[in-house]
Amino acid sequence: MISKAKVKHIKALQVKKYRKEQQCFVVEGTKSVVELLNSDFEVLWVAASEEFGEAKQQILRLRGVEWVTATPTELMAAGSFKTNDGALAIARMKPNIKPKVTPGHLAVMLDDIRDPGNLGTIIRTADWYGIKHVIASEETADLYNPKVISATMGSFCRVNVFYTNLIDFLSEYPGPVLGAFMDGTDVHTLQVTGGGVLVIGNESNGISAAVARYVTERITIPRVGKAESLNAAIATGIILDVIRQKND
Amino acid sequence: MISKAKVKHIKALQVKKYRKEQQCFVVEGTKSVVELLNSDFEVLWVAASEEFGEAKQQILRLRGVEWVTATPTELMAAGSFKTNDGALAIARMKPNIKPKVTPGHLAVMLDDIRDPGNLGTIIRTADWYGIKHVIASEETADLYNPKVISATMGSFCRVNVFYTNLIDFLSEYPGPVLGAFMDGTDVHTLQVTGGGVLVIGNESNGISAAVARYVTERITIPRVGKAESLNAAIATGIILDVIRQKND
Repeated sequence: MISKAKVKHIKALQVKKYRKEQQCFVVEGTKSVVELLNSDFEVLWVAASEEFGEAKQQILRLRGVEWVTATPTELMAAGSFKTNDGALAIARMKPNIKPKVTPGHLAVMLDDIRDPGNLGTIIRTADWYGIKHVIASEETADLYNPKVISATMGSFCRVNVFYTNLIDFLSEYPGPVLGAFMDGTDVHTLQVTGGGVLVIGNESNGISAAVARYVTERITIPRVGKAESLNAAIATGIILDVIRQKND
Repeated sequence: MISKAKVKHIKALQVKKYRKEQQCFVVEGTKSVVELLNSDFEVLWVAASEEFGEAKQQILRLRGVEWVTATPTELMAAGSFKTNDGALAIARMKPNIKPKVTPGHLAVMLDDIRDPGNLGTIIRTADWYGIKHVIASEETADLYNPKVISATMGSFCRVNVFYTNLIDFLSEYPGPVLGAFMDGTDVHTLQVTGGGVLVIGNESNGISAAVARYVTERITIPRVGKAESLNAAIATGIILDVIRQKND
């Protein structure tokens, strides 16, 4: 059974302010909890149902993580998922450390991506394309928001998100900075060196003027039809696919 | 002011059963309402605030659409958006008519896309790539769900969604059927003829076995990193971009 104190803790961690204070976050669902247990995140405790399975419970024992058994009903009542018959975990946030984006490697930079689903999907897509680092503006949605964690489908374990002032970061970054605009060079004709930072702008306003000044290559995805724009996560996926093809 | 009866009507239209009964749906936000007014949808009435602007109110007058003035507070209280300072409209659903997918044209087929955000984003992406028809299984999310309409960003006005039994449709369809799988041919090496149906599978289970039997080309997006899969809307965007490049 999940104790009342633990349920209260889980509920409180829905709120960013409390997450920041506690430096903890919630992970829900069997798949994500298994990825968490196989990652280098510090796991505080896990609530798991019988449906989580004996093999997975073995991982808990081996890692020496505190765990309680819970019914699917308890898991759903405590967490934010509509359905969860497997597990829920509380883990420690990682420190926010500036990554080294080495030459030849590509990183994704987010200039105020505010929708948690978009952020999570971008992290999942970055992981698909082997990208290790996302550099996010301070106004970007919080990685540890349960909706973001959920949308990453476990990729939060492999992709590092660093929150910072983008101008500070860019003013010290020596490599190419690609930016997705409505009026840039066709991304398919781009000369790609392999490394750099790909900037994706805010859902409504695109890349801010201050960040745009650091962009060395304005790129665009050619439109055939009539939609005014592409969703930010879709644009990220298409551009990463094109760049990966060029580097093959 | 939006009358109590109208507010009640808007609230009821959040529910699929009631939408079906009334054959009406709600459109929220200035951008989407303007696209709606410029489309061939029958508009029943509009609630618009001063922020909607005189030029846009002129369109209402010209189209002879019934409209009431409303404050942003009223628009938000009546609708489902967190912020809406512009407009809200009630429109008539279109009849569900089987499209003619002519040779040389590409259509998107959805095999149980259940997430409203994914469906809306796929429609928006299809519109970007000039695709006119989406053929959706009966278990796919409802086009007229406010979350779907919102995520299309107005593209619901240009892309037609036809709900049907996919097997019935495919058994009569003579053209190529591309299907997105984890183990198909690299989409970048695909020989594209220009037309066909691109099938996108359910978020958790992919393309069903019954539909897979009709797939003539199993395609895949090559992975570089470690994510288990791509989001369904992201996969759609990447594949459509690759196909459009080949047809250029």
